[in-house]
Amino acid sequence: MKIAILGGTGDEGFGLGFRWAAAGHEIIIGSRQAEKGARAAADMQARLLQAPLPQAPITGTDNLHAVQQADVAVLSVPYGAQAATLAAVKEALAGKLLVTVVAPTGEKAARVHRLPSGLSAAEEAQLQLEGVSRVVAAFQNIGAHHLLELDHTLDCDVLICGEKKADKDVVAQLCQDAGLRGVNAGALQNAQAVEALTAVLIAINVIHKVPGAGIRITGI
Amino acid sequence: MKIAILGGTGDEGFGLGFRWAAAGHEIIIGSRQAEKGARAAADMQARLLQAPLPQAPITGTDNLHAVQQADVAVLSVPYGAQAATLAAVKEALAGKLLVTVVAPTGEKAARVHRLPSGLSAAEEAQLQLEGVSRVVAAFQNIGAHHLLELDHTLDCDVLICGEKKADKDVVAQLCQDAGLRGVNAGALQNAQAVEALTAVLIAINVIHKVPGAGIRITGI
Repeated sequence: MKIAILGGTGDEGFGLGFRWAAAGHEIIIGSRQAEKGARAAADMQARLLQAPLPQAPITGTDNLHAVQQADVAVLSVPYGAQAATLAAVKEALAGKLLVTVVAPTGEKAARVHRLPSGLSAAEEAQLQLEGVSRVVAAFQNIGAHHLLELDHTLDCDVLICGEKKADKDVVAQLCQDAGLRGVNAGALQNAQAVEALTAVLIAINVIHKVPGAGIRITGI
Repeated sequence: MKIAILGGTGDEGFGLGFRWAAAGHEIIIGSRQAEKGARAAADMQARLLQAPLPQAPITGTDNLHAVQQADVAVLSVPYGAQAATLAAVKEALAGKLLVTVVAPTGEKAARVHRLPSGLSAAEEAQLQLEGVSRVVAAFQNIGAHHLLELDHTLDCDVLICGEKKADKDVVAQLCQDAGLRGVNAGALQNAQAVEALTAVLIAINVIHKVPGAGIRITGI
């Protein structure tokens, strides 16, 4: 699958992209500046070599060109850059799935941050892309910490929120390819719980002095 | 410890009270009607006998008399009854800890429900009790399903949100006494994530056809 990662130079997007590249996907790293995207792509190739794993089709460019070439786009930018990033790529997203990793954090990252809209960032993205692209929320609760260590087993689940089961199945496969279990967590509206949980996990990291608390769903 | 359970005739409050009684706590089951509270207390005594476990000091009465006799009060009513229940016992709560189990659900229980205030139910409770009692949120994500089976190991954690560590330590002990691990999850504001997660777990129950999905915190 051709995956564009918008904001793919950041730790989370880069880490996920690396795991997907290692699983054989074609990765297009998007950035606001094409050169930054290209540099990150070269870095990712070097990491694959070091792994050692076969080279994979990894390229880097600006966000718009990344989306134009992709089957699926992953949004991994700070919340503050979400609306502008989506505005820049909206037309190119037509008919493509957008997987959003965005979890808004406020001044105190360890406290739930409420958006003025009263919505989740994922729902705001869906409103902005209404009639153009369907949004699925996932990976909000996965720390970037161990993504680059391919032999590190990630002891956490990914909650997947969205309106269409078929879309969520695509994302569940991407979870599996990254070494994670994806759990269908219902409607896109439920992304509000998942995004808020990011603050709880940051609080737990601070309070319990651990680098990357995560969640597991039990009983399924 | 003398624990008043407001709404202790409901499945969740009754189940928690039963586990605490089995651990040796004194339980005062509160209800809107004293007779209902008394009947639930007799039921709980009978269950202890059946377990078989020694009789414990379990009584039932109305919510106000329950709080008057207790060291700690547990609020386990539907969200719609929260404000009226607290108004009725506010004075008696002076200086006592209130542990709230309330998780608002909307018309579609499997979707995150947003309160008009933009706050969590726990924060609304704290606002109502400002200067009277401190509120800690806990047990929102624990299904009532297996609470009455004492030999059933509950495979889930309790997220504890509140402003004072000492209060949260009291609740962590109550978690342990109920056979659960309590995890300090930061400020009371974070109860918004925890309450919203209840809808996610209900969605997971529906989607995955399981009776009681829960969460575990990993990496701590």
